[in-house]
Amino acid sequence: MAASAGPEIERLIALLAKLPGLGPRSARRAALQLLKKRDQLLVPLAAAMTEAAEKVVACSVCGTPDTRDPCAICSDPARDDGLICVVEEAGALWAMERSGAFRGRYHVMGGLLSALDGVGPDQLRVAELVGRVKGTGAREVVLALPATVDGQTTAHYLAERLSGSGVEITSLARGVPVGGDLDWLDDGTIVQALRARRPA
Amino acid sequence: MAASAGPEIERLIALLAKLPGLGPRSARRAALQLLKKRDQLLVPLAAAMTEAAEKVVACSVCGTPDTRDPCAICSDPARDDGLICVVEEAGALWAMERSGAFRGRYHVMGGLLSALDGVGPDQLRVAELVGRVKGTGAREVVLALPATVDGQTTAHYLAERLSGSGVEITSLARGVPVGGDLDWLDDGTIVQALRARRPA
Repeated sequence: MAASAGPEIERLIALLAKLPGLGPRSARRAALQLLKKRDQLLVPLAAAMTEAAEKVVACSVCGTPDTRDPCAICSDPARDDGLICVVEEAGALWAMERSGAFRGRYHVMGGLLSALDGVGPDQLRVAELVGRVKGTGAREVVLALPATVDGQTTAHYLAERLSGSGVEITSLARGVPVGGDLDWLDDGTIVQALRARRPA
Repeated sequence: MAASAGPEIERLIALLAKLPGLGPRSARRAALQLLKKRDQLLVPLAAAMTEAAEKVVACSVCGTPDTRDPCAICSDPARDDGLICVVEEAGALWAMERSGAFRGRYHVMGGLLSALDGVGPDQLRVAELVGRVKGTGAREVVLALPATVDGQTTAHYLAERLSGSGVEITSLARGVPVGGDLDWLDDGTIVQALRARRPA
């Protein structure tokens, strides 16, 4: 690709290109920026990555990456043990936390069931969820999984696996997002928002 | 933002968000991917960055980042010393090298003159270029700068600074890109392609 850049820079570009959101071209731009801002960006980022690799582990209870195990949320005594929110990845957990509306515990699946990508229940943290719900006697499991085919397949599978354990299974409401203009919404969302309409 | 993620992860996300092409949201996704693929991605990338920070320097002749000084291109005896291609950044140099059409030397400006961003000639490698052209008695300087306002301002400034040194100053041709459909080209390019039309 760029023989003149030397193997070290080529390796850096190749690894950066594996990050989501960066392709080969933007990875080259990112590498150049890093090399140009050596002391402000490259050195601190290398240190932050090394530190993260050394210190961050998946929480043994919920699966969130954190430097503590159990993580900050799992070890917070003020949270509701009876309420478990199931998310695909920690990114969704962080979004829930930013909303400030949820004060229960979480369970990170680590992905979604996918026939296409060959992801089965064994690759996800399903057994851990079932064991946790039974062990803690949780009252409600909120499925906060993506509104995609894989997300809904996973939600149905989990609902089935948890049925019989006496736990109430709910999922996030579908509807028009706050600030959402009907003109720009897909038909599926409008159909669901209409079906779930409520007294104004 | 995500108090529960811990300061180490927050710091990693904040630094990743400074890379070109990544915003706060994609930086979170990148951080999650890194933490998820700890051994395949996070550890190797941290090592590649540390190695680059230690080994890569700007070539003292042309300004390209390389592990050698002078860089591989500047120390290649097979290249034409009389021909210097001026580029904004090493990314443009890599693109020229991929084309395989240029066998001269390079000079990396390290940016463009910009009234808006307050970039003057002192922040760029202008004096180095002038000294190099006079010192080596180069025959031709090819200005391969972007076809933007800042790129052309810089090109005009460099042409003026180099006038009187006896060097021929050229710039890359403007025209329809290979595979370019006229329907999708901007008017400025069409005007320039028409003015520079050649016998078929």
